Amino acid sequence: MAAAAEEVGNRRVILKRYVTGFPTEDDMEVVPATARLAVPPGSAAVVVKNLYLSCDPYMRSRMSRHDEPSYVPDFVQGEVLTTLGVSKVVESGHQDYKAGDLVWGMTGCEEYTLITNLQTHFKINHPELPLSYYTGVLGMPGLTAYVGFFDVAKPKKGDYVFVSAASGAVGQLVGQLAKISGCYVVGSAGSDEKVNLLKTKFGFDDAFNYKKEQDLNATLKRCFPEGIDIYFENVGGAMLDAVLLNMRLHGRVSVCGMISQYNLEQLDGVRNLFHIVAKRIRMEGFIVMDHYGTYRKFEEEMAGYLKEGKITYVEDVAEGIESFPSALIGLFYGRNVGKQLVAVARE
Amino acid sequence: MAAAAEEVGNRRVILKRYVTGFPTEDDMEVVPATARLAVPPGSAAVVVKNLYLSCDPYMRSRMSRHDEPSYVPDFVQGEVLTTLGVSKVVESGHQDYKAGDLVWGMTGCEEYTLITNLQTHFKINHPELPLSYYTGVLGMPGLTAYVGFFDVAKPKKGDYVFVSAASGAVGQLVGQLAKISGCYVVGSAGSDEKVNLLKTKFGFDDAFNYKKEQDLNATLKRCFPEGIDIYFENVGGAMLDAVLLNMRLHGRVSVCGMISQYNLEQLDGVRNLFHIVAKRIRMEGFIVMDHYGTYRKFEEEMAGYLKEGKITYVEDVAEGIESFPSALIGLFYGRNVGKQLVAVARE
Repeated sequence: MAAAAEEVGNRRVILKRYVTGFPTEDDMEVVPATARLAVPPGSAAVVVKNLYLSCDPYMRSRMSRHDEPSYVPDFVQGEVLTTLGVSKVVESGHQDYKAGDLVWGMTGCEEYTLITNLQTHFKINHPELPLSYYTGVLGMPGLTAYVGFFDVAKPKKGDYVFVSAASGAVGQLVGQLAKISGCYVVGSAGSDEKVNLLKTKFGFDDAFNYKKEQDLNATLKRCFPEGIDIYFENVGGAMLDAVLLNMRLHGRVSVCGMISQYNLEQLDGVRNLFHIVAKRIRMEGFIVMDHYGTYRKFEEEMAGYLKEGKITYVEDVAEGIESFPSALIGLFYGRNVGKQLVAVARE
Repeated sequence: MAAAAEEVGNRRVILKRYVTGFPTEDDMEVVPATARLAVPPGSAAVVVKNLYLSCDPYMRSRMSRHDEPSYVPDFVQGEVLTTLGVSKVVESGHQDYKAGDLVWGMTGCEEYTLITNLQTHFKINHPELPLSYYTGVLGMPGLTAYVGFFDVAKPKKGDYVFVSAASGAVGQLVGQLAKISGCYVVGSAGSDEKVNLLKTKFGFDDAFNYKKEQDLNATLKRCFPEGIDIYFENVGGAMLDAVLLNMRLHGRVSVCGMISQYNLEQLDGVRNLFHIVAKRIRMEGFIVMDHYGTYRKFEEEMAGYLKEGKITYVEDVAEGIESFPSALIGLFYGRNVGKQLVAVARE
């Protein structure tokens, strides 16, 4: 079989150079290559065809070169990027996988990938839902919202919840999970279009465009006259400083990310940390990979919500592998509306 | 009885003016007054003679006027300051107290005080130990160290523990509790004399004088080549920023106070908060008043350690009520060596 392996065109996205400051499309390059649709003899690997590739903020860290190991490994200059994706197995040397299986997990930013380590891949249990959802609401961002809200923030009915980057891949879900949990939820986003989505589509009680607000402290006081019990932190910087002023006693800050800081050479200073003492705040960071053991429970619960119409999900789909660099860069300018992904192939 | 009440001299410390920036002795004034050693008829109050008065960093907040309620009430301009103290009951209208009883709790910065609310007073169960210890190791700072270390930081044997302001009222105890718990502990302080105390008297594994270090990040890397599991935070600002760079995965920051920030008009910005995500750090503030329910358990345990010689305690005792203003101000310049208190009377 390996001898007769088909060789196919395989366009791929490589990292042209390590990035400092804001990344640009030119830091990446889409190059032609070929792939052999064959598993090395005796290896428990699979060859997959990539259908949907995910663009996520944490990837910014991987585009820089770190002297000390970062929380995610750096990309390698000149080599193909990797990302989470939804893929179809086309050849398998692994006893648990066969051609035609649909999986999600870490794959190459390319059309076909040889995956040798399947430890953190999941088979897709609900192919009746849109497959692209496994880059979002049924994948890593969904699980992120779920564990960051329930396991880290530990909501109680009636809590006042604030979500930043609230129309993003994670934020839109946190808001809807908060409503399902009987909380009052307000979101911030960076355009009126997104704010409108939050209020009309995702059921947030209120929302604001942070770019139009002069004084975030005053804005939060207006939105939360009683203060904030839970802040789901996606942005960092000035927003966090304003939130700290408005937290309630025993408030919780679930720290998922700080996208406002990822491209800065000089990070913003956060000045209001003493409120952590005065208000007995718990501020806790988490990484979704630590919670993959929760995935199957989450997948069933979330699939149920989707089928019952209790949760809705908005995706921003770029077409074709060539669009990957601009789609990824767009995250850092807030160009995406909803979860950003790239459709490489439909089946 | 009330009719025959004795009137005595009662020097007291008043707040002359609200403070901005660094407080000075001139912001307070020691004034003569008199006290009647009698309880108002029908009241469940007590009159106490104050023996030892505590000087604590949180009092700085009370010296300023806040537009919104702070976590502790502001002092009132022109009126006597209040603080925690060890006192002897001289007259009692309360069924649970009689003349001669020794108590600790909130009292006036004066020689005699009429206490009408005894809800947060504790009778002293171990008068065989130095009574002044009830302003420190057996009082609020002791309980602070105990709950902040055990209940908030949740140590495990072998954890790497860093304590700032480590020779202070709280820090010296955190270090010793950490050693009792089988941890490795390093402290920072602001003089070579204090550093010496940490190493020779309190049994810290290592210690440094932060004023002599050029690069706190490098210092912490030297002291903790494996990183820090628990940071007991007393100072805030630049030290916190350096600590965040050196925390280990799943580290905990128990936020007790941030004394470096209390006198600043413009607070320091902390830039390395993304490490909370990357290292899954839990940073949690606490206020000892929330934990008074633990006091009796703590008192017995700590009294046991003291009697067994497992814990030692260093106090900096200023003599006489007139010394209160300078003793309090000294905290913010690090003039005190060990727990600062004022001996108003010995019995």
